Amino acid sequence: MQDVYVLGVGMIKFGRYPDKDVSQLGAEAALGALTDAGMSIKDIEMFVCGNLFQANAMNGQKILQQIGQTGIPVFNVSNACATGSTAFREAYVGVASGMYDVTMAVGVEQMGKMGLLGGGARSGGESVEGVLGSGLMPAVFGQAGVEHMRKYGTTAEQFAKISVKNHKHSVHNPLSQYQVEVSLGDVMKARMVAYPNTLYMCCPTGDGAAAAILVSEEKLKQFTTKPIKVAASVLTSDPYTDRDLTMPDVNTLTQNAAKQAYEKSGLGPQDLDLVELHDCFATAELLHYENLGLCGEGEAGQLIDQGETALGGKIPVNVSGGLLSKGHPLGATGVANIYELVNQLRGNGGARQVEGAKAGLAHVIGLGSACTVHILTA
Amino acid sequence: MQDVYVLGVGMIKFGRYPDKDVSQLGAEAALGALTDAGMSIKDIEMFVCGNLFQANAMNGQKILQQIGQTGIPVFNVSNACATGSTAFREAYVGVASGMYDVTMAVGVEQMGKMGLLGGGARSGGESVEGVLGSGLMPAVFGQAGVEHMRKYGTTAEQFAKISVKNHKHSVHNPLSQYQVEVSLGDVMKARMVAYPNTLYMCCPTGDGAAAAILVSEEKLKQFTTKPIKVAASVLTSDPYTDRDLTMPDVNTLTQNAAKQAYEKSGLGPQDLDLVELHDCFATAELLHYENLGLCGEGEAGQLIDQGETALGGKIPVNVSGGLLSKGHPLGATGVANIYELVNQLRGNGGARQVEGAKAGLAHVIGLGSACTVHILTA
Repeated sequence: MQDVYVLGVGMIKFGRYPDKDVSQLGAEAALGALTDAGMSIKDIEMFVCGNLFQANAMNGQKILQQIGQTGIPVFNVSNACATGSTAFREAYVGVASGMYDVTMAVGVEQMGKMGLLGGGARSGGESVEGVLGSGLMPAVFGQAGVEHMRKYGTTAEQFAKISVKNHKHSVHNPLSQYQVEVSLGDVMKARMVAYPNTLYMCCPTGDGAAAAILVSEEKLKQFTTKPIKVAASVLTSDPYTDRDLTMPDVNTLTQNAAKQAYEKSGLGPQDLDLVELHDCFATAELLHYENLGLCGEGEAGQLIDQGETALGGKIPVNVSGGLLSKGHPLGATGVANIYELVNQLRGNGGARQVEGAKAGLAHVIGLGSACTVHILTA
Repeated sequence: MQDVYVLGVGMIKFGRYPDKDVSQLGAEAALGALTDAGMSIKDIEMFVCGNLFQANAMNGQKILQQIGQTGIPVFNVSNACATGSTAFREAYVGVASGMYDVTMAVGVEQMGKMGLLGGGARSGGESVEGVLGSGLMPAVFGQAGVEHMRKYGTTAEQFAKISVKNHKHSVHNPLSQYQVEVSLGDVMKARMVAYPNTLYMCCPTGDGAAAAILVSEEKLKQFTTKPIKVAASVLTSDPYTDRDLTMPDVNTLTQNAAKQAYEKSGLGPQDLDLVELHDCFATAELLHYENLGLCGEGEAGQLIDQGETALGGKIPVNVSGGLLSKGHPLGATGVANIYELVNQLRGNGGARQVEGAKAGLAHVIGLGSACTVHILTA
């Protein structure tokens, strides 16, 4: 196993691209990463594409048809919402193995042309949850929030503050799907989707793409003197079959992945300067404060009240705007998190820069089940 | 990079399973591989699922829900017809990297519940080929055969003999979808699908699943004294964008992959005892004789005439019955090839055993584009 570094990242503005297709969006992000790395497509030795809803359409190969076909190994992965981060991880494994010195991961999704999303992997008539309709994501994460309220006295306002914070962060991110502030009143008064999450506490649908180039230490030295290292790359699945409608796997999946990532990197939550975590719903972000060890059990409500996870706080979370405002084009999300961390660790965060950031964590959860945790260090 | 071995394989009979779903079929094959290896699901450290048509449905995780969830990394891959072999390859990379000592790949597909297949990755209105309808697989491989006839004088009878041979082989394979002999007359008189391929020269649609367990040398020694080694694992994509309706990529993809596999293994075509190659159509098998170096350019017609690729010949091809008779449930095919090689290299081929088999090659091509070549040795 050799050390792995991120040399280049690219990303398109999340939004709607009705005149383009999935491979065009992916190609733009890939070209961005090549430019950022100072590389040609001929330098890439292996390519992984993460896309969920057209997972069988050979999108990895179609992207290369647009930016340069060189005959390298290409494959396509899917893992629910963790699709992009799984692509990043497999590109990481390619370099870590010693098999390749340069690999690329692209995560891409086009949701704008689709109808309303159902419950994804949990929908359909196969499972009790699917039949009852609780497989619908808003219901799942609503219930998870309600359970936190019941256990620890967390309030609807505390969940709503997450949305206020992330929307505020996104104002400084030109690649965010939305770049508008919302007040606590706006969030609380918005249309209820699934208690306690109102409309502004649910991530939007949209199109997007992001790309990352991973390299060995030897290759890195030829291109830069400022390494961004992948200190840990972890993928977990459910350790049991859940038939519990409070969805404990939302928590245990993340807890297991975080534990492994901290062990592998030799870092703990106290060493992190920023976190990009999976705030598909406001309730999810609050729960993951505890799951990732950013605070103790039952203390997440206080953490948001005290502003510690806002830019300028002790441990800024989702300074990119998060899924709630930056957007959540499923396959793109995991690589977009990496894009944000890399730019922050380089000190290129602009108005949303976390001062002196040296270590960041990216977290993605896919129900069905998959969870990734990556720790990057400067 | 450490050496990788196949410790266990499993496979269900290819056919139609209208009362089951994809994950149930995959689970049966996985249990078969565990039994064959003498392992428990708790021994598996990483799991890759290959499935094409429900590629976004988290089938890997669903399989583990049935046979045992342990929290290990699980991800889902797709790569057109090379989906199963890509899953096998990524499981191989996991062990080769030193990251894991035991990984499992499952390839599975359920086509019986689907309507008629179109052109897969090449269909639709995006490309010239798609619009013209030549993206339909029968047309693609018909044209490739016609081009071989034009260039080298190959005859329709020579292509038809491939079907006769593979159907004859399949009589001895209890897991084959069809187990009946067909005469040269039967094949030639069957309904024409796309010249020169008649109905019996096209693979059937069906359901199927196969699984393989890969291990490091250290783990291998704890379980067996008869190693089956993965001497080469290669994945290639198109080195250029083709707009040639004679489909040169059908040939170059395989030629490039074979060249790399021979280099990595240190073996040549003359060292092989058997080959399982991608006979999605009879024309394809004949072309691949040359692409894999089993004979010289333009000599493939003679090779089949002389019976050298039949059981008992110089280099038996598709003794399992091949895709033409064993069947071609897309995601399962690549792992099923490995199943056949492993059993042959163990001397467990029964009535279709290739005497003294010590080295075998498995080849899969996915249009769109992906090609895998694996060489296994006893």
